[in-house]
Amino acid sequence: MANKIRVGILGYGNIGRGVEAAVAAAEDMELAAVFTRRDPATLRTAGFARKVVNISEAENYTEDIDVLILCGGSATDLPQQGPEFAARFNTVDSFDTHAKIPEYFAKVDAAAKKADKISVIATGWDPGLFSLLRSLGESVLPQGKAYTFWGKGVSQGHSDAIRRIKGVKDARQYTVPREEAVEKVRSGNNPELSTREKHLRDCYVVAEPGADKAAIETTIRTMPDYFSDYDTKVTFISEEEMARDHSAMPHGGFVLRSGQTTEKVKHLIEFRLKLDSNPEFTGSVLTAYARAAYRMHKEGTRGALTVFDIAPKYLSARTAEEMRKELL
Amino acid sequence: MANKIRVGILGYGNIGRGVEAAVAAAEDMELAAVFTRRDPATLRTAGFARKVVNISEAENYTEDIDVLILCGGSATDLPQQGPEFAARFNTVDSFDTHAKIPEYFAKVDAAAKKADKISVIATGWDPGLFSLLRSLGESVLPQGKAYTFWGKGVSQGHSDAIRRIKGVKDARQYTVPREEAVEKVRSGNNPELSTREKHLRDCYVVAEPGADKAAIETTIRTMPDYFSDYDTKVTFISEEEMARDHSAMPHGGFVLRSGQTTEKVKHLIEFRLKLDSNPEFTGSVLTAYARAAYRMHKEGTRGALTVFDIAPKYLSARTAEEMRKELL
Repeated sequence: MANKIRVGILGYGNIGRGVEAAVAAAEDMELAAVFTRRDPATLRTAGFARKVVNISEAENYTEDIDVLILCGGSATDLPQQGPEFAARFNTVDSFDTHAKIPEYFAKVDAAAKKADKISVIATGWDPGLFSLLRSLGESVLPQGKAYTFWGKGVSQGHSDAIRRIKGVKDARQYTVPREEAVEKVRSGNNPELSTREKHLRDCYVVAEPGADKAAIETTIRTMPDYFSDYDTKVTFISEEEMARDHSAMPHGGFVLRSGQTTEKVKHLIEFRLKLDSNPEFTGSVLTAYARAAYRMHKEGTRGALTVFDIAPKYLSARTAEEMRKELL
Repeated sequence: MANKIRVGILGYGNIGRGVEAAVAAAEDMELAAVFTRRDPATLRTAGFARKVVNISEAENYTEDIDVLILCGGSATDLPQQGPEFAARFNTVDSFDTHAKIPEYFAKVDAAAKKADKISVIATGWDPGLFSLLRSLGESVLPQGKAYTFWGKGVSQGHSDAIRRIKGVKDARQYTVPREEAVEKVRSGNNPELSTREKHLRDCYVVAEPGADKAAIETTIRTMPDYFSDYDTKVTFISEEEMARDHSAMPHGGFVLRSGQTTEKVKHLIEFRLKLDSNPEFTGSVLTAYARAAYRMHKEGTRGALTVFDIAPKYLSARTAEEMRKELL
């Protein structure tokens, strides 16, 4: 391939690592640089980046990078980095603070348009592929009802909430979809499902020595927003068990659309992800959307986009002819 | 809504009926006309069309129709109608003769471009949504393997093949995906599956009075291409049973993508359709793509397109802002 797409990674955490693996596996891409807040000399990457550079120098690399993938978090990193880097690079990110998406979209859109760049925001699997499937389901089955189930997978937010409780040393919370609820949806009766009926919360907690475990358990179970509306299971484990049994980051879930076209003629659309590693899969999706960003920018598209704005052809490494021949 | 999308239906069979129901349910569309080869006075529609017109007069309606949905078959209707009507209307069709798609695409593309029109070809659910999911799976999980399973559903081609056997009065053939094969794929081991391992063929046959049933069964089981590579079940039934138990047209299937991002880190993407009525669901998908054709034509896109070329936003009746707020 004559011109490989030159990708940059901003922020080398779990998602950054996932992007690195995905770019390394993509024949039409090369990893031009990883930008980090840490001392570049101390960063241990998987070795596919041509350069590891401090983030303060990123502005010197605008000519060397076709698409910069922002791998920071939605709480503090992206609200600042999204608009800032959209003013210098084509970008892709996984911004996922749902309530703030319109505001974030507007800021990134303005910055990218001013700079003649493109920015794909809020991609990954949810938001991302799940959003795409929610829209697709609604478009082809407008008389119906949509359901999203998450898990089994680690919720970082819920794990953090437990860790903030006095006497808790470490915690891991799994969100678990209730199989009986998924089955009810599959039956085609468009059930109304309560929060409690849809998901269980399964918590693994390492307590500090001498901590009041009963009090910790009560604090978890009664915590508003996070746990009080759910059936919650709390299991105390040792630090060794936490390290041994809970270090993987599996996730996944279901998007279902159940509806009818005429009276009593029912249809079910089901999309399911089962992921061994949430950050690796997210990194892989971000990388496919980086390909789209590069190509659509070349074609003249500018400003902020979401998964809704991107045709499948832009994500694929294949030519249009090949896609029609092999995949249609 | 000020300007509704004025849809036309060409060919009023099962899919045409499905499109009529979908257009009637879409608030942004109206059914301007149904074109039929039959005497319009004899055609019993569901009553949503403003006009029912003989196909010979279609050319007088180019100003009255924004998108014409071609509801004919792929064997004889579409190869002729596709290019012919692409020269006069924006069109959408469900052409599904896989081997001839590149040739068909080229002809329709040339006709549409010459006429300054747009034509979405080969949509529905397979080709169509299944194609979209095959490409999406490959794009986000390039190191992996794709599987498509069909059914349980009626295969028209296989039913017709049985009907051509001497002594057969009527027949219905269901393609049935083997659950154990689907489970093998879900396990993440990327199995090599033979034709026989993936699907069963379940046949219901009405024999002529006095016909040699054993001979019919042998002819079915040994028929090359259609049945000889499969485990085939043959059940003889009465005409009454055929009418009572086998008049529905359910279908569906699975598209699975199983792959890894790094060594031993596996992911599974599963898409499933379970359809009470194949033609109604197909009609509904065609209608969503008619919305896309209308909008993309307005934006200046010309020529033949497939599902790979169409961003999700064009299929949705919602605004971009609503989609980002409600579906992302």
